[in-house]
Amino acid sequence: MSQITGRPDDGGARTDARDRLLGAAVEAFAARGFHGTTTRDIAAAAGMSPAALYVHHRSKEDLLFLISRSGHEATLQLVLDALASSEDPVEQLVAVVRAFTAHHARGHTRARIVNYELSALSVEHLGEIATLRRAIERHVRELVESGVAAGVFRTPDPRMTALALLSLGVDVARWYRDEGEWTPEEIAEHYCGLALRMVGR
Amino acid sequence: MSQITGRPDDGGARTDARDRLLGAAVEAFAARGFHGTTTRDIAAAAGMSPAALYVHHRSKEDLLFLISRSGHEATLQLVLDALASSEDPVEQLVAVVRAFTAHHARGHTRARIVNYELSALSVEHLGEIATLRRAIERHVRELVESGVAAGVFRTPDPRMTALALLSLGVDVARWYRDEGEWTPEEIAEHYCGLALRMVGR
Repeated sequence: MSQITGRPDDGGARTDARDRLLGAAVEAFAARGFHGTTTRDIAAAAGMSPAALYVHHRSKEDLLFLISRSGHEATLQLVLDALASSEDPVEQLVAVVRAFTAHHARGHTRARIVNYELSALSVEHLGEIATLRRAIERHVRELVESGVAAGVFRTPDPRMTALALLSLGVDVARWYRDEGEWTPEEIAEHYCGLALRMVGR
Repeated sequence: MSQITGRPDDGGARTDARDRLLGAAVEAFAARGFHGTTTRDIAAAAGMSPAALYVHHRSKEDLLFLISRSGHEATLQLVLDALASSEDPVEQLVAVVRAFTAHHARGHTRARIVNYELSALSVEHLGEIATLRRAIERHVRELVESGVAAGVFRTPDPRMTALALLSLGVDVARWYRDEGEWTPEEIAEHYCGLALRMVGR
């Protein structure tokens, strides 16, 4: 720890403290919502003083933004990976829905924060997240459109159908419980079947 | 106003004050979440003193419970009305999905609170809401099962499909915007088509 800045000299220790604060923020936001959480709550859960939090993060909103950005980046990446796994729209759709659904079941705590606390972001941060969300929506819409163009999908409004496919997966994070009777993989499997029907395969 | 109890003698005025507090609570919970809202915020938005709030409602949690109960009761009733509108599973499904989807778009502010703040309820209140939710889920599941039994629907897991149908409608409350390009009726119409495909009609 530098005696002058109060910041760790060790990059590894610093990253570790930042990650600990992010993990504590996820738990706190999930339990009490963004507005019901104080920076003091987050610091305490990470075993730090409130002052130490500000060494690593500018504000509570900054923590929410980092959680939201990494969540959306991970989701965008899994959509891109699924699309890259095949050139056939049917196989691509199955890959996207399987990965997207299982991701929202497994990461339900984080996904709820990422999807339900957007209005707490600053205008600038919300703009950055909206860009990522639009990219995810555009890739799924283009997939549905490519299937329609290839004659393998049939749907009167590819854009609304694409939104419904994402919506169905996002909502899994709301109702999924770790102690429930279905595994993330079982839900993902069933949802692949539903998705193929929704696009009129 | 009674000088002794501080409560309005007039039943009408009392109901009006209770409703004003409920409306103020909906706005406050929607803007800052349940945990980020104080009874003082709610009372101020209703043009009352914090003490006056307690004349009408026991606690902030009690307000959340009343909002949640009336929301779930309204949803259960619209499902029952839709089921009663026909004896044909196909027509019943269309009626349920149309009413359920449009309801979640039109009442998106209230629906978000009703669906995303359940964990803030007391154990006893959550139990009462869970009973209503199970009734809604059971009616939709039985509808899907009746269609399968009649040979007009085909789905490998009627229970998970019923849950997905409700999930799709609930999530409309998350993404719907009053200023968006689709009306609640247009979304409901498209979702009826998706629902018929999901059940394998």
